[in-house]
Amino acid sequence: MAKNLTTRQEDYSKWYNDLVVKSGLAENSSVRGCMVIKPHGYAIWEKMQAQLDKMFKETGHQNAYFPLFIPKSLFEAEEKNAKGFAKECAIVTHYRLETDPDNPKKLRVDPKAKLEEELIIRPTSEAIIWNTYKNWIQSYRDLPILINQWANVVRWEMRTRLFLRTAEFLWQEGHTAHQTKDEAMQEALMINSIYAEFAEKYMSMPVLQGLKSENERFAGAEETFCIEALMQDGKALQAGTSHFLGQNFAKAFDVKFTDKEGKLNYVWATSWGVSSRLMGALIMTHSDDKGLVLPPKLAPIQVVIVPIYNNEQELDSISKIAEDIKSKLIKLGISVKYDNRDYLRPGAKFAQHELQGVPIRIAIGPKDLQNKSAEVSRRDLLTKEIIDMNSLIEHVNKLLSDIQENLFKKALKFREDHMSEVDSFDEFQKVLKEKGGFISAHWDGTSETEDKIKEKTKATIRCIPNDPSSSKGKCVYSGNPSNQRVIFAKAY
Amino acid sequence: MAKNLTTRQEDYSKWYNDLVVKSGLAENSSVRGCMVIKPHGYAIWEKMQAQLDKMFKETGHQNAYFPLFIPKSLFEAEEKNAKGFAKECAIVTHYRLETDPDNPKKLRVDPKAKLEEELIIRPTSEAIIWNTYKNWIQSYRDLPILINQWANVVRWEMRTRLFLRTAEFLWQEGHTAHQTKDEAMQEALMINSIYAEFAEKYMSMPVLQGLKSENERFAGAEETFCIEALMQDGKALQAGTSHFLGQNFAKAFDVKFTDKEGKLNYVWATSWGVSSRLMGALIMTHSDDKGLVLPPKLAPIQVVIVPIYNNEQELDSISKIAEDIKSKLIKLGISVKYDNRDYLRPGAKFAQHELQGVPIRIAIGPKDLQNKSAEVSRRDLLTKEIIDMNSLIEHVNKLLSDIQENLFKKALKFREDHMSEVDSFDEFQKVLKEKGGFISAHWDGTSETEDKIKEKTKATIRCIPNDPSSSKGKCVYSGNPSNQRVIFAKAY
Repeated sequence: MAKNLTTRQEDYSKWYNDLVVKSGLAENSSVRGCMVIKPHGYAIWEKMQAQLDKMFKETGHQNAYFPLFIPKSLFEAEEKNAKGFAKECAIVTHYRLETDPDNPKKLRVDPKAKLEEELIIRPTSEAIIWNTYKNWIQSYRDLPILINQWANVVRWEMRTRLFLRTAEFLWQEGHTAHQTKDEAMQEALMINSIYAEFAEKYMSMPVLQGLKSENERFAGAEETFCIEALMQDGKALQAGTSHFLGQNFAKAFDVKFTDKEGKLNYVWATSWGVSSRLMGALIMTHSDDKGLVLPPKLAPIQVVIVPIYNNEQELDSISKIAEDIKSKLIKLGISVKYDNRDYLRPGAKFAQHELQGVPIRIAIGPKDLQNKSAEVSRRDLLTKEIIDMNSLIEHVNKLLSDIQENLFKKALKFREDHMSEVDSFDEFQKVLKEKGGFISAHWDGTSETEDKIKEKTKATIRCIPNDPSSSKGKCVYSGNPSNQRVIFAKAY
Repeated sequence: MAKNLTTRQEDYSKWYNDLVVKSGLAENSSVRGCMVIKPHGYAIWEKMQAQLDKMFKETGHQNAYFPLFIPKSLFEAEEKNAKGFAKECAIVTHYRLETDPDNPKKLRVDPKAKLEEELIIRPTSEAIIWNTYKNWIQSYRDLPILINQWANVVRWEMRTRLFLRTAEFLWQEGHTAHQTKDEAMQEALMINSIYAEFAEKYMSMPVLQGLKSENERFAGAEETFCIEALMQDGKALQAGTSHFLGQNFAKAFDVKFTDKEGKLNYVWATSWGVSSRLMGALIMTHSDDKGLVLPPKLAPIQVVIVPIYNNEQELDSISKIAEDIKSKLIKLGISVKYDNRDYLRPGAKFAQHELQGVPIRIAIGPKDLQNKSAEVSRRDLLTKEIIDMNSLIEHVNKLLSDIQENLFKKALKFREDHMSEVDSFDEFQKVLKEKGGFISAHWDGTSETEDKIKEKTKATIRCIPNDPSSSKGKCVYSGNPSNQRVIFAKAY
């Protein structure tokens, strides 16, 4: 199987698509722009969900569920948000099919079943949620509201790519309501940290944290915090955003509360989300020309055991040992598969597990039976070692942490090697063309300059770092004064 | 709060709605027929999901995700299924809004953005899934496919009720593909058992297991297995179904496989689901006029501790003890809340926890400080005991199992008291009118008779028991021969 994988060198974009499909993560469906997430892909997504959900709950958030549909009149209420999503909305206009009079085997839309008001399929749920919060909030005692929702959303994108940009995708969206501006801002910042922690500790994916420029901000937000990762082709990927929404939605939906002094105030809001796009980020951060490379913490199967045998008797002996290893590893909370399929050669199994990104492979053959050993291979480095049976469990357990850490270090080194500080626009263009990656440069703070740079180079401001380690300078494009360096890149 | 709850005696239907809204489980949204599932309701649903998901995975199923949309041409492919759902479909016809030329603050559907083919929002996913399976299945080695999906679906119901019947609802839908008829039938039966086990052990809700009559079968199924529960008003509620689909979908979507002998055969299918409707069943099985009653295994908070104090010093002493109890219970895997809100009187807290169905309340007051005791109340019986602090943890832990079991026994007794064996149609009508509940009666096996009985009594056949303990007899309506008794009831 792996033989057919396009290499990154040949065609990065084709490599990605090949990999996603051949490793069984996802595929295109017969609905334009919508994907099928296959069991292997969904199992990784479930692991992401479980960890994020835990982190949200530990910080006081609760889950809830709001309708898939947003009536047009509500959708319109917050003007910036509405304009931002109007061009990519799926719209329900009818609620019944009838038998086609021209062909009784076919159905057609029943023209009598037209909705009085069109329903927008949520591209994001602020409108329906704030219209609901209005009834939940009277006094300061009703605040904060800290709610998250796991849901599907639809944005009618014209050019789609599996996981990275699909018409329907899965995500979580947090929507919180607060008494004060400061509290809301702190919430958005805290979520930014949770996202960064998740990316780095679980996905082994280093991220930059910072603010978005006005051009790149969420439609309806006053500030957008983001985490930005760097893919192996030198392009950036926005991996999660949390928005300080100010009082925009509270005003649009008239959500006020009585404070401790008895005064009526508008509520302060945040919203935040990560999506199945993280799957794309995960794949492009670590994988290689043999297939997926998964950080152990998100791998559905962490260890696979493959028997190598010439006859049934050998298989029996190996199976006993394999089952023993398996049960010992499972006791440590490690997920293990014993791959004793009889219609595949070991080599074919190895290739498949490499393609699917199983972090550790244990092979046991006749020699290992004699020597009381096993061959342990790690997917990240593609190296093998013979390990004594007595120390195997401990070795594998430690190796999982090593792989998790090594993947992070490797990705971090890649990012550091692709972070360039530039001070002229010539250099900017040269680096972008020859090397790609993140470019740290001074910017005058105007949308005009950002637009011009984008027009000429396709690079955008990925983030304005939270912690500006740089002093003042001159804009790399306009020469006007700049307060700090910002991070540019071409992006997914 | 609880004061305002309508009683079951007064108006059962209003009691239900009141309870759902006032206990914070769910509410109607501004989208016709769609509900908002609030945090307390969603937390119960999450517990249901977690347990069911575990049971599915333990029996070899994997999760995946398929598109929300079904192109009309695919939807039509399996005729019975299509006809069954055609009248309640939400249909997407456009993919863009534009600024309304008559009012620049408003948006309107962009007539130029009309889809070439309409998209149906899935009322169930057989069509899109079998169109996908077609590409996954070539040989017997690709079978069985055992996939489940957690998703939202839409059925445009005209009369809706929170959890019981809503336009959008949450559910799981399993879709499996098999080599043989027998294997598919066994799968449908096994899922029927899993659903029954879940209902009885986790929801403490006794269920009847059996087959549906043709009238009540899922559109497109050859056999439908179901679990049927009895609500406190004597009406039945279908709580979960698993369908043996024969080769209907395989034929409609041309899904064949090469068997071990090299012959091409159509694949055999099942599908099965339970939905957020289970929330309605849970509520109506156990709750009372004071509010929700929840089986401990599904209660988001199993134990609440309420301090009763006259001054800060007392509160401090109680808080120390409460935190100690809390941490000991949490170590046992019990979820505990210490409710030390300072703006509510203990009585108000008691009423709120009763309304929300917390199984056990521990109250600690000044006397308990002196006597090293606590007052333990159980929600199901509304009884209290003074328990010595030394045995408190053990007592509470055991009490949770007792409550779980007691709820089941109570519901089982109610069902047994409302299971009537009748042998004439007069008796049938009399029992139905005076007592309600399940009626076990002979039936001649025809749809005509079933229709007639439904017309005259509104009762339908809820199930044909898997294990017919009855001998042959004569149909209660037509007098024609009958093979076994079946179960009738009025139903939700």
